Amino acid sequence: MAIVNRADLDFMLYDWLGAESLCDLPRFADQSRADYDAFLDLGEKLAEREFLPCHKAGDQQEPQLGADGSVALEPGTRAAVRTYLENGLQLATVDEAHGGMQFPMLIASGVMANLMGANIAASGFAMLSIANARVISDFGTPEQIALFATPQHEGETLGTMCLSEPDVGSSLGDITTRAVGDETDAIGARFRLSGRKMWISAAEQDATDNIVHLVLAKIANEDGSLPAGAKGISLFIVPKILPDALGVPGARNDLEVVGLNHKMGYRATPNCLLNFGEGKHMPLGEKGAIGYLLGAPGQGLAIMFQMMNEARINVGLGAAALAYRGYTLSRDYALERLQGRPLEDKKIPNQVPISRHPDVRRMVLGQKAIAEGALALCLYSAKLSDLTQGEQDEAARIKAQALLDILTPITKSWPSEQGLIANHMAIQIHGGYGYTRDFDVEQIYRDNRLNPIHEGTTGIQGIDLLGRKILFDRNGSLGVLLAEIRQTIAKAKGGSFEGYAGVLEVAVLQIETLVAGIDDAPKALAHGTAFLSAFGHMVLGWIWLDMAMAAQKAGAELAEGKALACAYFYAYEMPQIAGWLAPMEAGTTLLSDLNETLL
Amino acid sequence: MAIVNRADLDFMLYDWLGAESLCDLPRFADQSRADYDAFLDLGEKLAEREFLPCHKAGDQQEPQLGADGSVALEPGTRAAVRTYLENGLQLATVDEAHGGMQFPMLIASGVMANLMGANIAASGFAMLSIANARVISDFGTPEQIALFATPQHEGETLGTMCLSEPDVGSSLGDITTRAVGDETDAIGARFRLSGRKMWISAAEQDATDNIVHLVLAKIANEDGSLPAGAKGISLFIVPKILPDALGVPGARNDLEVVGLNHKMGYRATPNCLLNFGEGKHMPLGEKGAIGYLLGAPGQGLAIMFQMMNEARINVGLGAAALAYRGYTLSRDYALERLQGRPLEDKKIPNQVPISRHPDVRRMVLGQKAIAEGALALCLYSAKLSDLTQGEQDEAARIKAQALLDILTPITKSWPSEQGLIANHMAIQIHGGYGYTRDFDVEQIYRDNRLNPIHEGTTGIQGIDLLGRKILFDRNGSLGVLLAEIRQTIAKAKGGSFEGYAGVLEVAVLQIETLVAGIDDAPKALAHGTAFLSAFGHMVLGWIWLDMAMAAQKAGAELAEGKALACAYFYAYEMPQIAGWLAPMEAGTTLLSDLNETLL
Repeated sequence: MAIVNRADLDFMLYDWLGAESLCDLPRFADQSRADYDAFLDLGEKLAEREFLPCHKAGDQQEPQLGADGSVALEPGTRAAVRTYLENGLQLATVDEAHGGMQFPMLIASGVMANLMGANIAASGFAMLSIANARVISDFGTPEQIALFATPQHEGETLGTMCLSEPDVGSSLGDITTRAVGDETDAIGARFRLSGRKMWISAAEQDATDNIVHLVLAKIANEDGSLPAGAKGISLFIVPKILPDALGVPGARNDLEVVGLNHKMGYRATPNCLLNFGEGKHMPLGEKGAIGYLLGAPGQGLAIMFQMMNEARINVGLGAAALAYRGYTLSRDYALERLQGRPLEDKKIPNQVPISRHPDVRRMVLGQKAIAEGALALCLYSAKLSDLTQGEQDEAARIKAQALLDILTPITKSWPSEQGLIANHMAIQIHGGYGYTRDFDVEQIYRDNRLNPIHEGTTGIQGIDLLGRKILFDRNGSLGVLLAEIRQTIAKAKGGSFEGYAGVLEVAVLQIETLVAGIDDAPKALAHGTAFLSAFGHMVLGWIWLDMAMAAQKAGAELAEGKALACAYFYAYEMPQIAGWLAPMEAGTTLLSDLNETLL
Repeated sequence: MAIVNRADLDFMLYDWLGAESLCDLPRFADQSRADYDAFLDLGEKLAEREFLPCHKAGDQQEPQLGADGSVALEPGTRAAVRTYLENGLQLATVDEAHGGMQFPMLIASGVMANLMGANIAASGFAMLSIANARVISDFGTPEQIALFATPQHEGETLGTMCLSEPDVGSSLGDITTRAVGDETDAIGARFRLSGRKMWISAAEQDATDNIVHLVLAKIANEDGSLPAGAKGISLFIVPKILPDALGVPGARNDLEVVGLNHKMGYRATPNCLLNFGEGKHMPLGEKGAIGYLLGAPGQGLAIMFQMMNEARINVGLGAAALAYRGYTLSRDYALERLQGRPLEDKKIPNQVPISRHPDVRRMVLGQKAIAEGALALCLYSAKLSDLTQGEQDEAARIKAQALLDILTPITKSWPSEQGLIANHMAIQIHGGYGYTRDFDVEQIYRDNRLNPIHEGTTGIQGIDLLGRKILFDRNGSLGVLLAEIRQTIAKAKGGSFEGYAGVLEVAVLQIETLVAGIDDAPKALAHGTAFLSAFGHMVLGWIWLDMAMAAQKAGAELAEGKALACAYFYAYEMPQIAGWLAPMEAGTTLLSDLNETLL
């Protein structure tokens, strides 16, 4: 049993998003649907045989921190990660020049959705490493790539991203991890790092011998002070085991995991407090973790944001996959579980499957609308990412980038928030059983609760969308997106989905008008999250309309189901947009003006 | 530190709901605010000193089932329950005739809110027992009361309610637990019970020696078959230890806990699979658990619903208390945690408390609106319950009953669903920390997730509200409620809250019109949950308006804060009503007509 229905996935990838047309681009030339299908098969098999079986055990047996700072993973999780690496799935989107398969992100996302839906925590290791290795490949020197990216490509090491600190989460400009210049060797400009990083996923694990950390730190001024603000941040490659070239083969770098966070869910991924430069390991005789500058000084945040943007789309994908899993589990349960009698005939002798009850149907269909819609959005974003890399026509490439920019906060937040609502419904359908740890929907709900937090909370996404991506955007991203949406609306005119097109048109106009009327950015940004919710629903209304039309056009077997979920979305979800926009439209300054002592 | 702000609680109890005026009723005569205050003090102390300290331990050390069917509670929880019983808090609302304090439910709810907010799982034991003993006191013979209610009043035993079975949750008419007539003795009509009950909270524990189960079962027909449907259900008192009068002092009854459910949260309360009549304990030589019929044969569901209605209000109260606790914890965190800079000035050198960020303010204020609103609703319902018992004027008593009837599904579901949303915000405010088990908001969220499920899911409440309480109601409950709401609206006219009154008036009219237009009950009931959401928000809009006006009138110190939360509710929450009602107003039959194979 596939985690993501294969017919649905195939429809989205091939019929709706035209994955095969990507093969017309030079970047994906010589590839074919047969290649993609074989890779999707592999991902499906791995999800079912390796990732799913250890989902529960990974929750029950949390990673253990040893006295020496080592971390032991739950054995099944460790084995699943190893199998993934040994099968080379991490190479999916890696450039051929670096030994990769150079597949579209779109296809890799289809594979990843199965793995994440089966076991989000076990999937986290590879997800981070892939993004890490890509950043090193894009910005590193040939020596850095060979030493730190290639071993990740080859499945020998895994990588992390080290941004947050105990007192610095969303406000990265305030980090205090310090880098002091050492000397420049064959690998690059060498620094000594000291500081503490918090919330670092997989900062220690026993699936690979070495671990490559990408660490944000500030290069100290000559007087020892640190530059203020985000502009002073640089990025460093800090391996756990030092390169042999430094003279002490296999020597440990001066860094150590000193604590693990005990999470609500997502437990198989160790979440670590990682200290640098405590002097526990000093092979080269001086205190401070050895790190190599990646890119230029001060370029740290800009580079890291490439990784962050990839991570944000993956967070959305994981949330969508968990919504999808909860949807199928609870749908199957609803079709089997006998309880009660129909509202219109309470007197029949036998109980009926609960899928006969309209409220249960609402919750199954509601989940379908969220899960398939969220997955569709993530796949759409993945394709945009492919176009930004592979599209030859400059205008088309710029357009794809504009769409990807404005859709990233939605792709991150909508599946995260709505996916939790979907998982809430999955539990409700199971009744008391859904509240017990014997049923997977219980764990999925806890696992998924992380997604509105990491890689930028929902509130941060709201500010990113309305601020950076709309009010302060110079690429006209909003206009590009709304034009795309209006194309779909135009296509729908005269067809059986015309009614939805009218509803969507109203929403588009409402948001467009609202944005045009903004004359005070901070005041508007105070409504960021509600705006994000409304905008997200508008986008999903568009995705659903477009997807339902594509299914109808393709004559796909699942067209009726898609039409149903689309109908649900327009009947039950689209009417919420007005409610979210109301306070902003009314110009409420309640939150900006608030006297905090009254809270 | 009190769990529920004492000034706020005092305001709600005394200024807003006029608790002292209850002392004018004969039932509460000779009582005074001084009595109530002393009792509230006691509850506060117990919450802080006994219930709060074991909240975490009760989650980490789940109840353990022994080979003999005994269940060991986490020691702190056991001690907290014992202290509660030894202090006689269970006597609060018990009739003086039965040795109780005969206090208003209103005051007892104020006490219970503190205990539940501190530790919902530890509070569950007493909550169930109080309702159990009340049912026995109301419907039992003097012998039954003396043997089974009095020991609960005296804190020597605890009671449970045994309704669900492994295959029967919401559809109680389908239970298969069987009662076969034995003989009639001094205690009453004796039966032998066999069957399995599921989801039974505290069916075993080691805080008291004996446990009194109230069990729904069907009296077998002469041919051994069971009557079909809900009308054949009777209620039985089934003690764990049999009365000495049966001839074998201290003998065990033929019942045993054979399994515990492992829950997401709410863990300190053991949730049991309880078997009757397995033949493990047969002191009287015959197989079958000994049970005494309570009330008349076939009266089981009607009697149990008295207990159920009390339990539903308590579920709401527990959810409200957890929302309140999450609100105060995250507010305090937001006022202290430094992170980032204001939207309007990103350049100031030092970070500010996150309470300066509008989105964090939204989440704190949103929680305040939910938590205080939910608590207010539960207290209001508790007062209605007092009036149904104590009111001398028949018309006033009938009116109180009508209001209580129609508000019960709201009092159960609104705090449960909205309380989870509040707890979600409490976690968001804490960022990554909120996702770890080191912070109480993590556990509160898991604890609270039970509340939309037990004692009737949210979907069941929607059908109860729109069906039994509106469409099939013969007491004009809806009209009574809307008249009350309109009185508040009228009071608001001309004052500073007039704008809200207008908004509320629109919502009332919209719902009234919608209900008046219903001509097909099953079709309408398919919209039960969305109707419940909309109706709940209308009710809370009323509660907030009424409470804000009362605070202003009382010149209470907290009037400004109440006005702020009311303003929030009207700006951010009331606009959602239209979205929920939209599909019903549009007459969508999507869910009723659905082809389930498309799900």
